[in-house]
Amino acid sequence: MGKPAAVLAFDVGGTDTKAGLVLAAEAGQIPQIIDIRRFPTALNAEQPGETLVEFLAGLMESYQADHPEHQIQAVGVTVPGLVDEVEGIGVYAANLGWKNFGFRAALELRMQVPVAFGHDVGTAGDAEVALGAAQHALNAMILIVGTWIAAALYVDGGRLNAGGYAGEVGHALAPAPGGGLGIVEANGSAGSIARRYGARKHGFEGGAREVLALAKAGDALAQQTWNEAIDTIAFSIAQAVAMIGTNKVVLGGGLAEAGDDLLVPLAARIDALLTFQPRPELVKAALGQNAGLIGSALKAIERRDEQLNDEADLRRKTVQHR
Amino acid sequence: MGKPAAVLAFDVGGTDTKAGLVLAAEAGQIPQIIDIRRFPTALNAEQPGETLVEFLAGLMESYQADHPEHQIQAVGVTVPGLVDEVEGIGVYAANLGWKNFGFRAALELRMQVPVAFGHDVGTAGDAEVALGAAQHALNAMILIVGTWIAAALYVDGGRLNAGGYAGEVGHALAPAPGGGLGIVEANGSAGSIARRYGARKHGFEGGAREVLALAKAGDALAQQTWNEAIDTIAFSIAQAVAMIGTNKVVLGGGLAEAGDDLLVPLAARIDALLTFQPRPELVKAALGQNAGLIGSALKAIERRDEQLNDEADLRRKTVQHR
Repeated sequence: MGKPAAVLAFDVGGTDTKAGLVLAAEAGQIPQIIDIRRFPTALNAEQPGETLVEFLAGLMESYQADHPEHQIQAVGVTVPGLVDEVEGIGVYAANLGWKNFGFRAALELRMQVPVAFGHDVGTAGDAEVALGAAQHALNAMILIVGTWIAAALYVDGGRLNAGGYAGEVGHALAPAPGGGLGIVEANGSAGSIARRYGARKHGFEGGAREVLALAKAGDALAQQTWNEAIDTIAFSIAQAVAMIGTNKVVLGGGLAEAGDDLLVPLAARIDALLTFQPRPELVKAALGQNAGLIGSALKAIERRDEQLNDEADLRRKTVQHR
Repeated sequence: MGKPAAVLAFDVGGTDTKAGLVLAAEAGQIPQIIDIRRFPTALNAEQPGETLVEFLAGLMESYQADHPEHQIQAVGVTVPGLVDEVEGIGVYAANLGWKNFGFRAALELRMQVPVAFGHDVGTAGDAEVALGAAQHALNAMILIVGTWIAAALYVDGGRLNAGGYAGEVGHALAPAPGGGLGIVEANGSAGSIARRYGARKHGFEGGAREVLALAKAGDALAQQTWNEAIDTIAFSIAQAVAMIGTNKVVLGGGLAEAGDDLLVPLAARIDALLTFQPRPELVKAALGQNAGLIGSALKAIERRDEQLNDEADLRRKTVQHR
C-alpha cells in the first residue's frame, strides 16, 4: 500500500525484448508506459524456457531498483509462436526454441507476483479491441504486417484461439506473383518487400519504407514489388471476409506506417476480390508499436485483480467455516 | 400430456423442402425421424417470407391430421442464405427472395408452438457436433459439398456466426483450374463437377457420381475434372487450417457419398499445401442427408424446454409476488 501501483510489461521477440513500466489507469483509458527499454532476447538452445525466465526476472529486479517509487504488482509477458493462453504455456516458437514450457507457473514462482502470459499478436489485438482502433468491433482482424505477418482474429466478439493455431495467416497460401502459390508472408510482409526488391535491384539495402519511396518516385520495379505485396495482403483479407465474416481490419506493424499508401490501394484490391460480401472497413492500428506492451499490461492488471478476488473469496470462506 | 411428444422439423431448400416428424429422444441419442416428406418449396417473389410461413403452417396441419397419436410440441425450421439465428431472422437468401424477414416470430404466431429458426448448414453442423462425426471436436469444419458448397466452422468449441456471414466458404476464392482465381463453389462442388465435365464431353448428362465412375474406368477428362475439384476443396480446407486452426473436417453433402474416392486424395492434397500445421482429420458425415432435420429437431426441443423454463420461472415469480 502507499506506493503508486504499476505493472511491468514484456514483449518478447525473436531478436529483441521490449519492456515497460505501466501505470495502472482507470478503466477505458490507455495506460501510461514509462521507461521503455529494449534488450536483445536471451537465447539458449539447451534451456530456452528457463533462460527466458531468468532473463525477465533479472530485468524486473533492475526495474524495481530503478523505480523504488512504484510497487510492481503484476507482470505481463507476451511471446511469439504458438501459445496456450489458458494454461500459460509456450507451446512452440521456431526462433526461440521452447516446446511446451510452462512459463506462467515458472515466472510466478520466480517473480512472486501474478503473471499474465499471452501471444504477442493476440495480446496486441486485444489492446486494439479494448482501447484502440477495433473498439466495439465484433468481427475484426488485427493484421500485423512487419518482418513477418500474423493476425488476431475476432468473431462474434471473441478472439479465436484454437490452441494457438488461429490467426497464423502469414503461413496461409495466396497466389504468388510469379504464378503458383506461396505463403502470405513470403510476398506480403514488409520483410518480403525489401528482400524481393533487393533481388530485382542489385545493391539495394533499404527496407519496405525505401521501396515505397522509390515507387512513389516512379521506379517501376519498386511499384511492381509494392503492388504484389498489396495483392497478397488483399487476398488474405478477402479470405477472412469470405470465410469468417471479418468486417473490420486493423493494420499494424511496420508496413501500416505507410498509411494511405497502403490502405487506399488495399481497399480497392479487396473490393475486386469480393462479390456479395460487405466490404471490410480498413483502419490503421491506434496503439502503434506499443500495442503489445499495453495489452500485456492490461492482462497483468486483470490477473492481479483475479488473484485478489480469489484471495478475498478464500478469506470469506475461511471465516464462514470457523 | 398423454400423447407421445414429438417435434416437426423442416429443412427448407431453394428447390425442395424436406419435413419430418421427430420423436423426442434421450439426451445423447440420435432422435428417430418418422414420416419424412419432400415438397417443392413454395416461392413467391412478392411475399416470399409470408408465403413460406403459410406453406410450412399448412404442412404442419397435414402432419397433425395424419399423426393424431403424436403431439407436436415444437417446430424447427432451417433455411439457406444469411440467417440471424439469435433474432430468428432470415437476412437474405438469393434464390428464395426474402430480406430481413422475422421468421421465428411469424411462425410462432401462426403455429402456436415454440419455433427454432436456424441456418441449414449451421444446423446440420451442430447435429454432427452434438451426435455425429464431430463429437468432442473443438476446431472443426463441417463442409457440405453438394450442388453448392457451404460450411459450419467451429473454433474453441463454438460455431462462428458473424451475423450469418461466417462459413460461406463456397464463395471464397481458390486457384482456378485454368489459372487465375475462382470461387470454391465454381470448381469444387458436385454441381460444378457435372457441369464442367459436361462442357468437356458433349452429350454428357449425368452428375458427379457418373463423372467419378468414368474417372475410375480410366476416362482422362473425368479424372482431370475430379482432380481439379479435389484441388479446390483441398485449398479451402488448407485455408481453414492455416487461418483458424481447423483440425477436424467432416464432409457431408452429395459428394461425400464418394467416401474414400474423395477422402484419400483430398488428404494427400491438403498435406501438400500445409507446412508446420497439424494435418486435419477428415471424416465422412455420420448423420448423412438428414443432419439438417436432426439438428432442426434438436433445436426445436431446446426451444420448447427454454419456453417451459421461462413459464415456470414466471409462475414462481407470480406466486412470490402475491
